[in-house]
Amino acid sequence: MATLKDVAAKSGVTVTTVSRVLNNRGCISAETRDRVYAVIKELNYKPNELARSLSKQKSNSIGIIVPHIEHPYFARLIGYLEREAVYKNYKIMICNSHGMFGKEVDYLEMLQSHRVAGIILCSRSADIGKFVSLNIPVVSIERSVDVGTSSVECDNYQGGVLAAEHLIARGCKNLVYISGVENETMPDDERCMGFVKVCEDNNILHKEIIYKADGYLNREYHSLIENILLENPKVDGIFTSSDLIAAQVIQVARKMNLQVPDNLKIVGFDDVNIASLVSPTITTVHQPIKEMAKEAIDCLIKYVDGKTVPSRIQMPVSLVKRETT
Amino acid sequence: MATLKDVAAKSGVTVTTVSRVLNNRGCISAETRDRVYAVIKELNYKPNELARSLSKQKSNSIGIIVPHIEHPYFARLIGYLEREAVYKNYKIMICNSHGMFGKEVDYLEMLQSHRVAGIILCSRSADIGKFVSLNIPVVSIERSVDVGTSSVECDNYQGGVLAAEHLIARGCKNLVYISGVENETMPDDERCMGFVKVCEDNNILHKEIIYKADGYLNREYHSLIENILLENPKVDGIFTSSDLIAAQVIQVARKMNLQVPDNLKIVGFDDVNIASLVSPTITTVHQPIKEMAKEAIDCLIKYVDGKTVPSRIQMPVSLVKRETT
Repeated sequence: MATLKDVAAKSGVTVTTVSRVLNNRGCISAETRDRVYAVIKELNYKPNELARSLSKQKSNSIGIIVPHIEHPYFARLIGYLEREAVYKNYKIMICNSHGMFGKEVDYLEMLQSHRVAGIILCSRSADIGKFVSLNIPVVSIERSVDVGTSSVECDNYQGGVLAAEHLIARGCKNLVYISGVENETMPDDERCMGFVKVCEDNNILHKEIIYKADGYLNREYHSLIENILLENPKVDGIFTSSDLIAAQVIQVARKMNLQVPDNLKIVGFDDVNIASLVSPTITTVHQPIKEMAKEAIDCLIKYVDGKTVPSRIQMPVSLVKRETT
Repeated sequence: MATLKDVAAKSGVTVTTVSRVLNNRGCISAETRDRVYAVIKELNYKPNELARSLSKQKSNSIGIIVPHIEHPYFARLIGYLEREAVYKNYKIMICNSHGMFGKEVDYLEMLQSHRVAGIILCSRSADIGKFVSLNIPVVSIERSVDVGTSSVECDNYQGGVLAAEHLIARGCKNLVYISGVENETMPDDERCMGFVKVCEDNNILHKEIIYKADGYLNREYHSLIENILLENPKVDGIFTSSDLIAAQVIQVARKMNLQVPDNLKIVGFDDVNIASLVSPTITTVHQPIKEMAKEAIDCLIKYVDGKTVPSRIQMPVSLVKRETT
């Protein structure tokens, strides 16, 4: 592969001059500039980003740590984060922690060794001190991070309110909230709080099932859902903390000959592709993932550029009505 | 952030000595080694991967170009590629081309500038000369690449055979194959060939619909499917080139009051999570995505290490029977 030296030799100028041409710095004649560019093209020279990053002691990479690339929520989030980063001339490195804390720490060290400009943290956040000692800006998305540069969340409380109000308006009298989360305090705990508040205000029977086992990792809730429906035969409305769980509720209901939405109404959360791909399609709380990704990348890059950024950004949610209600 | 110089100064040795300790090279006393490591720990020094990569003129990164991160097939593939890469001490950079050729070329130049060790190409492959001039090993997955280091594919022809045989065994008399592909020759064209061969051998009515519009990009096939079912009311079995399309066939069938599997049987392709999340669950041709990811990463790294690698690897498929048949 052609080097800067090769370009300089063939152009008959010094390496410094080639570097000046590339960086558009210093006083260079139009003739020299044209000659250098012609040689660059001829030799198919590519500037060395590694060298450039090293001289700045920082690369134009952003590290993204997610618990599960394959989860439809994170797949969509990564898609938007990548788009925003590229738009701002950054590239992304993806780290898939599988929700394992040890793996997260390894990734953090790796990202630090590669001098990433910053980290977007979508994975759990225990032992946050680990992150802080990194001296790298960290923006979290939908994770409780006390320390760190910024956090971006959706209005989880309002999501719970919208779901409960909608189920009640559709005639439900006996509600259940199902959440499958990690063993951490998470912003989505507030979904439950909003849901409970509305049920209490309306004197509606309700139950919260927070499933803290490894269901979140396996993304497998069928037997949990079956038990809930068997133990609570009067349940006529279910709110789930993700569309993924809602899709599994539809499957279990089908197996138990419960008609959705006639006997059982379902509201999911996230509004990812699965919500509109299953039959019946899922009524869900739309999380503005695209806009959240944009805010997170904006925040990180502004902070890297020395600007003051918000410590917390909350984005609005909305209810998308589909066939499950 | 502590530098190599800081470690050297605090340990009372030269930078060269610290570097020797870190790289386990040259003759260093146990006492010096211990002192240097103690200082490294005290200062929380992290080796600079950028500098290391620069001196080797190659980073331990692998670039992955996919057309759509959010497509369940690519989301799963990326998950496995990342796992295999990390296991081999490589990290991955994800590039999402949105199927746009211009974006792919930009990404290739970017990856070259970052001196990636190699590229896994899961996106389309027009103008492959562009890749070859890169002098970087390229392993393709499920894409037609004439030039390049290696290609990894599943046995697409056999997938078509299995699907047709199964639909016929289940009593179907009038079959349709639906594929939504890009405007390129793709390995999955062979799915159609295997399907047609079995239909012809069994004198079964059949029709192939290769949808080359932008459906692949939007992942939206509802109106196409509705037209197919309206224009071919006798169709009793559909084979689709992805589970994503199969999920949409279920939705359209439901809207048209066609009972699946009683009136219409469906076989998908890929066996990604959506196949087991929709209702009814989808009978599908299992593509060994995990094993394909492992082969691709293995191949790339072996090639980087100067070993001879296969130019083409084909992996077997199998039929997974579920509720749509």
